[in-house]
Amino acid sequence: MASDSKKNKNLMEKISDVAARRGIFFPTAEIYGGTAGFYDWGPIGSLLRRKIIETWRNFFVKSEDNVYEIDGSAILPYGVLKASGHVDHFTDPKVECKKCSKVFRADHLIQEAIGRNVERASVEEMSKIIKDEKIKCPKCEGELSDVKPFPLMFSIGIGAEKAQGFLRPETAQNIFTAFKRVFSTMRGTLPFGLAQTGRVYRNEISPRQGVIRLREFTQMEVEFFVDPRQLNNHPRFNEIKDISIRIFSREAQERGKGSDATEGVVDVTAQEAFDRKLVPNQCVAYYLARETLFYTTLGIPREKLRFRYMMPEETPHYSGGNLDLEVELSLGWKEVIGNAYRTDYDLKSHSKASGQDLSVSPLGEGERVIPHVIEPSFGVERATYCVLEHCYREGDRDWAWFQFPPKIAPIEVIVIPLMRKDKLPEKAKEIYGTLKEEGFDTMYDEKGSVGKIYARADEIGIPYAVTIDYKTLEDGTVTIRDRDTVEQVRAKVGELPLTLRKLIEGEIKFKEAGTPQKR
Amino acid sequence: MASDSKKNKNLMEKISDVAARRGIFFPTAEIYGGTAGFYDWGPIGSLLRRKIIETWRNFFVKSEDNVYEIDGSAILPYGVLKASGHVDHFTDPKVECKKCSKVFRADHLIQEAIGRNVERASVEEMSKIIKDEKIKCPKCEGELSDVKPFPLMFSIGIGAEKAQGFLRPETAQNIFTAFKRVFSTMRGTLPFGLAQTGRVYRNEISPRQGVIRLREFTQMEVEFFVDPRQLNNHPRFNEIKDISIRIFSREAQERGKGSDATEGVVDVTAQEAFDRKLVPNQCVAYYLARETLFYTTLGIPREKLRFRYMMPEETPHYSGGNLDLEVELSLGWKEVIGNAYRTDYDLKSHSKASGQDLSVSPLGEGERVIPHVIEPSFGVERATYCVLEHCYREGDRDWAWFQFPPKIAPIEVIVIPLMRKDKLPEKAKEIYGTLKEEGFDTMYDEKGSVGKIYARADEIGIPYAVTIDYKTLEDGTVTIRDRDTVEQVRAKVGELPLTLRKLIEGEIKFKEAGTPQKR
Repeated sequence: MASDSKKNKNLMEKISDVAARRGIFFPTAEIYGGTAGFYDWGPIGSLLRRKIIETWRNFFVKSEDNVYEIDGSAILPYGVLKASGHVDHFTDPKVECKKCSKVFRADHLIQEAIGRNVERASVEEMSKIIKDEKIKCPKCEGELSDVKPFPLMFSIGIGAEKAQGFLRPETAQNIFTAFKRVFSTMRGTLPFGLAQTGRVYRNEISPRQGVIRLREFTQMEVEFFVDPRQLNNHPRFNEIKDISIRIFSREAQERGKGSDATEGVVDVTAQEAFDRKLVPNQCVAYYLARETLFYTTLGIPREKLRFRYMMPEETPHYSGGNLDLEVELSLGWKEVIGNAYRTDYDLKSHSKASGQDLSVSPLGEGERVIPHVIEPSFGVERATYCVLEHCYREGDRDWAWFQFPPKIAPIEVIVIPLMRKDKLPEKAKEIYGTLKEEGFDTMYDEKGSVGKIYARADEIGIPYAVTIDYKTLEDGTVTIRDRDTVEQVRAKVGELPLTLRKLIEGEIKFKEAGTPQKR
Repeated sequence: MASDSKKNKNLMEKISDVAARRGIFFPTAEIYGGTAGFYDWGPIGSLLRRKIIETWRNFFVKSEDNVYEIDGSAILPYGVLKASGHVDHFTDPKVECKKCSKVFRADHLIQEAIGRNVERASVEEMSKIIKDEKIKCPKCEGELSDVKPFPLMFSIGIGAEKAQGFLRPETAQNIFTAFKRVFSTMRGTLPFGLAQTGRVYRNEISPRQGVIRLREFTQMEVEFFVDPRQLNNHPRFNEIKDISIRIFSREAQERGKGSDATEGVVDVTAQEAFDRKLVPNQCVAYYLARETLFYTTLGIPREKLRFRYMMPEETPHYSGGNLDLEVELSLGWKEVIGNAYRTDYDLKSHSKASGQDLSVSPLGEGERVIPHVIEPSFGVERATYCVLEHCYREGDRDWAWFQFPPKIAPIEVIVIPLMRKDKLPEKAKEIYGTLKEEGFDTMYDEKGSVGKIYARADEIGIPYAVTIDYKTLEDGTVTIRDRDTVEQVRAKVGELPLTLRKLIEGEIKFKEAGTPQKR
């Protein structure tokens, strides 16, 4: 990756620039100089995010059987996060300069100073490395302190008594603590899924990389509760068994150069992955296939995806195997989904700490078990950034543009009058109003030449532009311009909503949307 | 209200009971005993909430011109909330028992002890009242401390340096700090609206009343930025000028028994309200009309709504006039929307504190003004609770049920096989699958008799039940049952999606959905 670093840095910068200029995202409280790790999403970014979340919901909740969504508090009491292990173990290694008092994340500091990956080393080991390698403060060359664990949760004082609570570091804990009640209210049987999307908080020591590493971000999680005897018997496995998934096995990682190697990824069907034991169980394989479909629907090429089987030292002790979906970005391969086979660890821990029996009857009655859990955990901001980077196009036009899949494009159609006179704006606004009423995400623009408006529309990835001209007033037809090919067709105003709907849904090709026009 | 208090208390309890039993809402971390002021929303509650939010979005964002939605961080840095005035002024009066150390909200304590409303009194005045009236600790009869202001914001330490920040107490502050950038990215002209929905946090001293008073809740806010010379010239006022709104004026409140009086509410059109100066300006009148339409769409009767013009002592000094939409609940009249005419206070404060010029050109170019702001601020949980209470029905059946408007019903249709044999479940599951694919919020149930399933469906307000029987296998028809009338019609399976869509959208009457059946 090293040789690409200049170009890569530029791509993230370019996207951040257009994001700020066009209202996709920008630093929170920007007029006050912002705060590292916090971003606000503007009108275009909010729409994109919401469509990504809606796509996730369609894939992982609505089209599933027996999967339900809940919506819990982000502030959780101490007991929940003590039992989950976060109070004791959810930390990053921190080191401080004894001279300038600047604070660093120790593993990143060591990585940058001597190029060694110590992500999973203990704080004692890191302290020793810093001493042995004579690593100094990168800011002032001062001597560094011992490495200490730094808690990643934001602490909260609740009520006048300031009872200790935390901002949740994952949405999962609401699901585990609510599981028994919701299973019973929904008259559940196993397998049973609970999904949730919402904000989570991690007090990173020094977040960088824009919206890739945030202190406040949004997760979309599913906890899929399974009878432990049925882990290799997912009820819908047959539907996805032939889907190809790209797996980067532990063996391949050991043979190669670790997590940054691109060779060694195998492309196998979900069935093969299961048969060859490339995954912990069949339920995990089911999710890897569904996630591949989800991410390609968002416009990420298949070859830019890989499921990396986490190495033993990267895996929590209770885990039965974790596979991260990584997407290749200009910054390297980045985790976008964590798939954890959490066994019965969480329900057992909460059962013990709360004194509640959290076992359930797999068939709704009769014998009881503590379910095992498969957890696919998605990050919304990372998904959004992946879409932005992989849909970014430059060089073929005088302007850069986004080739968003029409179904997730923030604005689906822009309406433009050819001239700002002769009743063209009135007609255009009428059509704009109709499209809005029909539920399209649409925009009206009359400022500047049509060419300039097309360029601005491309820049925020609007797939279709409808232009109203003098012919419209005569025969009730408009031109539709296709963002990707810049081809144009002439279509009837009355058929516009249906035609546009079919285009966005991918039910017709652009040529079928009307009569082709010469340009 | 006093004579109703026993019955009323019961209604909130009844709703909380059904909410917990059927997965609408329940205390956060319930297995650990919960924490006051925090609730999680189960599958049914989450769907209901989401549909209320979507209805708000259709009303106040999508169907408006020049109104955009953003999505900002809930953690905000100190500077933002210092400038907004929250650091210095956003407090509740706190009093502590010197003997048992129990903490109380002083105004509530005084109200309960001597029946006097001191909501807006100073802490010094409250201390004096407690002394003069010899009010003691309601728990242990101990002596009470002086009254002190208690900060309502949750404080947060950001990064290793623990830089002070806060969980936002309102979503509005993201909008004010992002206004200038978003106005420019959207090539804005005035009037210009920014909307946001998201979590907000208030560290209430001792929250009660279930989901009505929460420490973590969800707002839906619009900040409508207007050229101060155009406050009485809303571009779409004509569309709503004949809508009737119910206003409880300051004069009527003074004449009556204060905020709990029901007499003195006038029913006037938006035009009349503006002409008779019952509202601060025309833009406010526009929103009051739209809010009336919104709340009646949610199923709240018009006569249970009133806009109360806040008394001078209830209004912040910078405000040009506030009108709360109050809904009559079993607990009394409760604020569900705060309408604040915030003048240019916020933009000016942030401009001064940040050193940034926040003026804009009303026409996109030329002379600049600091816009004035109209803010309608909605609470999601209160809206949801209002819907639950006003749609709750009992006494006419052997079970209590919810008469949700079909468009916001969490589950729109339930599919039931008459018997669990003879391929009826297979056929029912096939129809259930089709409806799910068509995007309906649907449920399949085969457990118990059809009568029992109808009762369970009523209890969560499912408007339509589709039953598959032996006739279905012969002629491809099913029965549809109407929740409200318990009438049934026979309809063709193939037409089911379209028929149900029309029923839900209110485009046809139930009798038109098929051939009426005798029961």
